[in-house]
Formats: sequence, C-alpha cells, structure tokens
Amino acid sequence: MDRTFTLTVSCPDKTGLIASITNCIAKSGGNVLNMAQHTATDIGMFFCRVDFNPEDNQNFTEDKFRAAFSREADKYDMKWQLFHRCRKERMAVLVSKTSHCLYEVLIKHKDGILNCEIPVIISNHPDLCGIATDFHVPFFQVDPSKGKQAVEQDIQRILDQYNINVVCLARYMQILTPEFTRKWNNKIINIHHGFLPAFKGAKPYHQAWNKGVKIIGATAHFANEDLDQGPIIYQDVVRVSDTNSIEEFVQMGKDVEREVLVEGLKRYFNHNIFICNNRTFIIE
Amino acid sequence: MDRTFTLTVSCPDKTGLIASITNCIAKSGGNVLNMAQHTATDIGMFFCRVDFNPEDNQNFTEDKFRAAFSREADKYDMKWQLFHRCRKERMAVLVSKTSHCLYEVLIKHKDGILNCEIPVIISNHPDLCGIATDFHVPFFQVDPSKGKQAVEQDIQRILDQYNINVVCLARYMQILTPEFTRKWNNKIINIHHGFLPAFKGAKPYHQAWNKGVKIIGATAHFANEDLDQGPIIYQDVVRVSDTNSIEEFVQMGKDVEREVLVEGLKRYFNHNIFICNNRTFIIE
Amino acid sequence: MDRTFTLTVSCPDKTGLIASITNCIAKSGGNVLNMAQHTATDIGMFFCRVDFNPEDNQNFTEDKFRAAFSREADKYDMKWQLFHRCRKERMAVLVSKTSHCLYEVLIKHKDGILNCEIPVIISNHPDLCGIATDFHVPFFQVDPSKGKQAVEQDIQRILDQYNINVVCLARYMQILTPEFTRKWNNKIINIHHGFLPAFKGAKPYHQAWNKGVKIIGATAHFANEDLDQGPIIYQDVVRVSDTNSIEEFVQMGKDVEREVLVEGLKRYFNHNIFICNNRTFIIE
Amino acid sequence: MDRTFTLTVSCPDKTGLIASITNCIAKSGGNVLNMAQHTATDIGMFFCRVDFNPEDNQNFTEDKFRAAFSREADKYDMKWQLFHRCRKERMAVLVSKTSHCLYEVLIKHKDGILNCEIPVIISNHPDLCGIATDFHVPFFQVDPSKGKQAVEQDIQRILDQYNINVVCLARYMQILTPEFTRKWNNKIINIHHGFLPAFKGAKPYHQAWNKGVKIIGATAHFANEDLDQGPIIYQDVVRVSDTNSIEEFVQMGKDVEREVLVEGLKRYFNHNIFICNNRTFIIE
Repeated sequence: MDRTFTLTVSCPDKTGLIASITNCIAKSGGNVLNMAQHTATDIGMFFCRVDFNPEDNQNFTEDKFRAAFSREADKYDMKWQLFHRCRKERMAVLVSKTSHCLYEVLIKHKDGILNCEIPVIISNHPDLCGIATDFHVPFFQVDPSKGKQAVEQDIQRILDQYNINVVCLARYMQILTPEFTRKWNNKIINIHHGFLPAFKGAKPYHQAWNKGVKIIGATAHFANEDLDQGPIIYQDVVRVSDTNSIEEFVQMGKDVEREVLVEGLKRYFNHNIFICNNRTFIIE
Repeated sequence: MDRTFTLTVSCPDKTGLIASITNCIAKSGGNVLNMAQHTATDIGMFFCRVDFNPEDNQNFTEDKFRAAFSREADKYDMKWQLFHRCRKERMAVLVSKTSHCLYEVLIKHKDGILNCEIPVIISNHPDLCGIATDFHVPFFQVDPSKGKQAVEQDIQRILDQYNINVVCLARYMQILTPEFTRKWNNKIINIHHGFLPAFKGAKPYHQAWNKGVKIIGATAHFANEDLDQGPIIYQDVVRVSDTNSIEEFVQMGKDVEREVLVEGLKRYFNHNIFICNNRTFIIE
Repeated sequence: MDRTFTLTVSCPDKTGLIASITNCIAKSGGNVLNMAQHTATDIGMFFCRVDFNPEDNQNFTEDKFRAAFSREADKYDMKWQLFHRCRKERMAVLVSKTSHCLYEVLIKHKDGILNCEIPVIISNHPDLCGIATDFHVPFFQVDPSKGKQAVEQDIQRILDQYNINVVCLARYMQILTPEFTRKWNNKIINIHHGFLPAFKGAKPYHQAWNKGVKIIGATAHFANEDLDQGPIIYQDVVRVSDTNSIEEFVQMGKDVEREVLVEGLKRYFNHNIFICNNRTFIIE
Repeated sequence: MDRTFTLTVSCPDKTGLIASITNCIAKSGGNVLNMAQHTATDIGMFFCRVDFNPEDNQNFTEDKFRAAFSREADKYDMKWQLFHRCRKERMAVLVSKTSHCLYEVLIKHKDGILNCEIPVIISNHPDLCGIATDFHVPFFQVDPSKGKQAVEQDIQRILDQYNINVVCLARYMQILTPEFTRKWNNKIINIHHGFLPAFKGAKPYHQAWNKGVKIIGATAHFANEDLDQGPIIYQDVVRVSDTNSIEEFVQMGKDVEREVLVEGLKRYFNHNIFICNNRTFIIE
C-alpha cells in the first residue's frame, strides 16, 4: 500500500519556513521523499509541497502529525492541507456531444495517470452513452429542455448521490449558473478551447482564424463565476498554418484540448495547485 | 547573379487559375522553381506565390512578361506583384534602449538571412549608437522632448533621405501617430512583446504574470492605425513556470521577441505575406 | 461524393515539369485544387502532389486522363500514381499488449482522420480484444508459441482473407522476418518508441535515460528489412527532466508514440510520402 | 552585494537527508531561499541544490558553516560543494570561423545572463577578431599549421595566463587531444550541432538530411575523452521539412546551437549540474 502523505503549505514569506516544515516532519517520524518550494518574490508569498512517508519504527500517526504541524502553522501563519495517496477524490465528468476529451480522461484514468475515482458521467445529450458503457461507468442524461436551473438541480442530485468532490467539464457545452459555480468554487475544472485570456466565450477557433493568429491553444482552468476567467491550471498550443481552414483548427485543437485537460487534472489530483490572487501557482 | 523572379497573385477562387499562371510563365520563357498555392475555402480566396527563372535561350524579358500576365490577370480579376531577387527593399530600423532585437536584425542581415538593405538606424535614445557603429550603419537620434509630431517629422525626413521602403520597429517604445501609420500602411513591421490578441498595450509581461498564464509569446505584426491590432505576421511562444518572476518573463521573452521579429521580416522580404480581410495569409 | 483525385509525380528535375503537369490536367478537364511541389536540389529530384477535381461539363474520365498523362510521363521520365479519394486502402492493425496506440488509431479513424478502412486487428496476445470489440472490429489472436514462421503464415492468411493493402504495427512487439517485410516492402508502418536513428533496438527509453538525454521521441517509419532503419515518415519529441524516472519516460513516451503513429498514417493515406534514396520526402 | 551561497550535495539516498541539510543551514545562521532536490530512484542517488543567505544578526561565517557541514556530510557520505554568487568563474571562449555562437555568448554575457567572466577569446582563425574587439575582449590567434600539440600548448599557456577555470567551445572546429580533455575533465563545454547520441562526428546536418529525419537538434555537453560522448547538459530541436536543403538545415541549426550552448552555460554557472554514471542530472 502506498503510504505517502502530501503536505501543501502557503504563507507570506519569512525566514526559517523550510527548516520549520522539514523539522516537524522529521520529529513526527516522517521521511521526506520530494520537496518543491517556491517564493514568489513579486508578491512575497511562499509555497511548498512535500511528499513524505512514515518512517518504519517511528510511531508516526497522522493525528499526532496534524497536531504538531498545527502549532507550527500558527506560528508562521501558514495555510496547509494534508493528503494521503490512498484517499482518492471522486470526480464526475460532464460532457455534451464531442468525445475526444471524455475518451482521454477515461483512457488516462484506466492507465493509472489520474489519482482519482470516476464514479459517474453526466451529459445533456445521449451521444456519449456508448463510451461510458465501454468503460463501465454509469451514465446519466439530464434534459436541457427543463431549463438551466432544473438541469443543475438534477446534476447536483447526482453529484450528491455519488459523493462527488470535484467536477470535470470535458467539453460540456452549457454555461453554469453563478449559484452552481459558487457552490463548487475551485472544484470545477473546465477545458476551454482557446488560449485564454485571448478568445474568451463562444467559437474561439473562428475568432482565432479571423484574427489570423499563427498559434492556437487550449486552457484548463477553474470554472468560477466570471466566464472563462477562473484561475488557469495548464495551457498548451499548436502552431497552425494560414493554409488551415477553421474546420482544421477545430480538428487540430482537439488533440491540444484533451492533453491540456488531462495535464490539468493530473496537477489537481497530485496537489500541485496553489491559488493566490485569483491565479494559480503550480509547484511541481 | 540571382535572376529569380517572384510572382504573387491573389483573387477570388475560380477554376483554371493555376494552369493560367503556369502557362503564362512557360510561354514567356520562364521556368517555375517553386510554387506555393492555397485556396482559403472559408472566404473563397486564392493565393499563389511562384518563384521562376528566365529559361536560357528563351528571350524572356520582364516587360513582355508583365504585359502578358497583365492580360491574364484582367481575365481572372487577379491582384499581382512581380519582384526580382536583386532589387532589394531598403529598411530603416527604429529602436529605443533595449538591444536584443537590434542585434538580431543586424546579425541575421550580415548572415544573409534578410534579403534587404539596412541603410539607417533611428532612435529616440543614444544607448544603442555603439552597436550601430559596430555594424557600420549610420545612427540618428531624434529628440523626444520636441514632441511626437516633430519627432515623426524628423524621422520622415531621414526615411526620405535614405529612400526607405519599409520600417522595422525593433522595440521602439513610442506609439506612432495615425498620420504616420496611415502614410506607411502595411509597411511598418513591429514586434509586440505579448501573444496578441491577448495582452495588448503596455507591460504585457506584467499582465501575463498577473493572469497566471503558463505560456508567453511575442507577435510580429504590421503597425497600423489601431494599436497592436494590425495583421499578424508571425508568432512564437515559450512555456513559463509559475516559479518564474516577472523579471524572468521579461528576460525569457527577449529570445522569443528577437526570433519572431526576424521570422516576420524574412517572410516580408521573401514575399510570403498576403493581406486580406485585415489578416495575413502566409504562403510558403 | 468526394470526386477528388490525387496525382503524385517524381522524377529527375527538368524545366517545364509543372506546366506539363498542370496543362495535362487542364486539357483533360480537371481543375487543380491544391498543388505542392518541391525540388530537392541536393539530389536533383522533383516531387509533386496535386489534388484535382473533374470540372463539370468537361467529360473528364479517369481512363482518358491516365492515357494522356502516361504520354507526358514518358517524355519526362516521371514515376506517377493516381489515387481517388473514394477508393480507400484497407489497413490491418497488429498489436501486442499495450493499448495506447490501438486506441488512438481507432479513435482517430472513427473521427474521420484516417482515410482508410480498418477491417481487422491481429495480436499475439488476448489483452486488447475488448477494445477491438468496443470498436466493432474483428480481432484475431495468433499463437506465439507456434514459432515466428507459423505465426507469420497465420497473419498472412488473415491479411489475404481481409484484402489488406497496408499493415500498421501499433506496438506489435515481435520482430518480423525479412521474408515478411520484403513481401510488404514500404507497406508496413511501424511506430518505434525512440528518436531514430538514435536508440535503435530494444528498450529505447532505458537507453535514453542512461545516456541522460534531455529530449525523447518517437518515430513512425516503414518497417523494412533492416531493423529500425526503414524510411522515416514522422517524428516528434518531448522534453524530459532529469527528475523523471525511466518509468516516467515510458509513460510520457506513450503520448508521443500515439501522436506520431497517427500523423504517419495520415500522411500515408493522404499520399504525401515520396521515397527516394531510402529516405522519405513528405510533400504536403 | 549579492550574498547568496549555493550548496550542492549528492550521495546515496537515505532517510533524513533533507532535514540534515536544512537544519545545518538554519543552525549556522543561514536562511534557505530556494531548494531543489531529487532522488533518482533508478540508481538510488540523492541530489540537492540549495540557495541560502546569511541571516542578519546571526553571525554566519562561511568557515563555520563549512566546518559544521563537513561533519554532517561525513555522516551521510555526501559529496558537496559551496559556491558564493560573487566569486565568478573565468571562462575562455574558443572559436573558429562561424560567429553565431560567439555573438550569443558575448551578448548574453553583456546582458547579465551568464554569471561568469570572459577574459579571453582564442581562435585558430583570424575571422572573428572584429567581434572580440567590438565587445572589448582580448583575442588570441593560434596557428594551426604548428600542429595540434603545439597549438594546445599555446592555448594552455593563454588559459594559465588568464586564470581560466572553464573552457567554452563555441564552434571550435578542432578535435582536442585526450591529454587536453583529461586535464580539463568536465571543465570544457562544447556545442555539438547534432542531436546526440545520433549524428556523432563530422557533418551531422548532412547525416541528418541523408537519413531523412524530421527534426534536427543540437547538444551542449562536456567534451571529454570520447569524442561527442561526454555528459549531455542541454539539448533542443527544431522541426525541419523535407523541402529544406542541407544548406537550410545548417542555417536553421545555427539558432538552435547558440540557444543550446547558452542554456548549457547558464546551468553550469548556476551550479545546476550533477554528474553521476557518466550522465548529468540537471537540478533546477
């Protein structure tokens, strides 16, 4: 069994933070495996992510560590979280009609790349039911004709029923209400098919083609209240040629979208994401 | 001596365009070396760029070809231009204080990469005079305290004196007046240190850092009336880490900026750029 | 119905080739849609790929065109082939245990990206049968314990039965005999999980890690007699960090492998590949 | 004045290494600024690089720290080095006729990117003397007609005279003798114009073109006894088209070469390079 704990810490920068963290782990009987730390000097913030194992014969217990670290955190004004590799988050995937992002999430999950469970897929269309079936994941269709609020209530009921912690919008082509995104603040990961902050909103590939950009991209971000403005998690791009049609932009974009979505999810479940001043700091 | 002609043609798409062009060249005694052609089906436009040589013993003359092709062009409503590799355009380089773009333009020019002449460098600051001297190019300093219009009159006088056809803004940190950009419409190539259309205007690296984007870029574009909105010629990007400071964004951006500017200039002097609907089509 | 023809031509470079080709198409009643041409000056070879449509009311017939072009080809010593978009080649996919390349080929094919039919999947292991079933493609398992020759005879029988024209090795982990590769010369497309010509043979990711390279890659190539030496069709790479383990190289490589394989197949079925001097020229 | 120290540590992996290192720094009155650590699980080795500052009012002295850390290092069998940002290494640049790498090194150095001094440039040809002069660096020409050993003695004398610690081969087109490379083991940084380990030896661009590779690259590596086999420091690549000539490969390669060389040098002077089992581990 994987006994690894991951500790994430953020706070205003001070001297002695790293020694404080590593000492507390050592004294509790933990052994640091990996440590990534960054001080964002532009805003004076310290971010740290540590993987550690309980050392054999050292009587490490999670409760004792939490108590000890809590005292340390108070001293330095740290915000912190402790995760255990075996307590997996449960992610629902919301989709509409296009399959490339859903396939990618399911294939990568099956391949062990995404450290989560995927107990349910929800869609406003029936098209992708067959794929859900191929991967043995329950599929629920919500009825868009009922109106946005009723649909979101249905979705919320399914999320509750399956004890979902995090929602992935894998090309779900409906704008969520502020009520819903507020409730799931920084818990909804969306793939936007544009290189944000350029090309917000609808039809980003058409916008990009009309503008004559030479590179297109996709963005995984938290879907918060302001449409396409939530903190960016991951981005990638692909060079296009002026001999490409809009249709080809759409096609080429698919590969970038699915890759960017999965890279965003990996970082989420691997606890690499710190949010500060409405932007992320990815510490790997 | 390089006897290559380059012919560029654009027009609404019709059948028979390619045969018409290649036949006219063949009948005039020319031999096609390279031909690049694209039909932008989204807007029904045809773009074509041909390199050809006069064939030996075929009595090719430029005047006869122009007359013959003119008749063909009228039939098909073609816009066309004919260039000769040995008639070089004359480019002025405008700079301010940072040297990386100027160095790149001068080094690449010396290396034979830019098919133009660079008879003069103009700046609103004295800092880069030494570099101009190292490369034996006359350097003129205009005095920003005289006001924008007087400065632009001084610049125009220098451009006239040196018979300049095209202006390169190699990190020239002054916004040009609409009068000036209108006069030099699609003849001023600017390097913008942001991935347009995102991050227009001032301090694009600060904007990008605050937004938490994961990739930054630069854009070579024609500097027309609308600030940072002229047709895009070339773009490139570089992945940044959230552990990079704004200062590091600026530093990393320099390499992208200089590369993008020179790639833009290469395409300009190589006649790869077609402009249509306020965007470019680069046909290579 | 898509009526597009694709004509590919290669021959020693001469003057007048392009006019000859485009005239012959025009006189036969064809209309050029796209034309890509390149003269490899290092070896004096001319390569050309043309898409054209029969023009309405022009009595184009394939037979007449073939007869007319044949005469032209003889004059210039051209090697040529004529393809019709609707006559699809039939590809068999050979696999072993890993699924990422098979998934990619099937998903992209379903998405209309690969202009071929996939009537059969063959494997020396049962593991991927479920995926074949999900995509409704017949799956045959050959028995490796029978010995390489017997296995290849079984494979050949299946290929014959399904009228297969081209074979895709989608991480098929057996070396084929020279008899087999000779029979299918330049008709077997393999994905090698290394950046050829570096890292030929087994365990390329281990080789790459031990060497400390900073970038790894994959190569789609024709599997001819010399192991991992056949003409290269497509390559791509991914930057690795020295903090990556061999296991992570393997994982990161999967995404490159699947992309490279599909890009190679696209070019094959799109008739972009010219082979000359045991290397390819991809003309797009 | 920049008072930053950089500590590098490598040793077989054990539990408690990070706590030991950070405690020793804290107890000596140092404050950790950045810490990058990696355990290469494939070979059981631990690598760590720490930037730290003396804390104010803590009576930090380098001697006391060295003594304290020495005891810690003995306990854990650590190899370690301590660097101070203000003690700059002195690099000689060796060149032949092509200017792109020399320009890049000098421009980046002037721009503050390379944390070293460049007191001398040595060449076996006179061509680049003017550039050395432009940047006010003494230039020495050695006479290749004297024979390799005499030339290397001349070079060694100049290196001694200028107290050189490290040698950069910026497209120096002579193979050094084993005597010379042994003397300067892991102190000579070379730029190879091929994507090693492919295309060792002469004319790598010709080799690459003949092989029909789709991506070319360059490699910065330590020039040790085995030609082009020393530990790799940095690599980058550029996609080429089959429509590029060998001459264009050479031209496109120049931009990659200069970038790769400077990235390699940056990592060297920033103390990011650990060497183990004849490969590097770059810890950033």
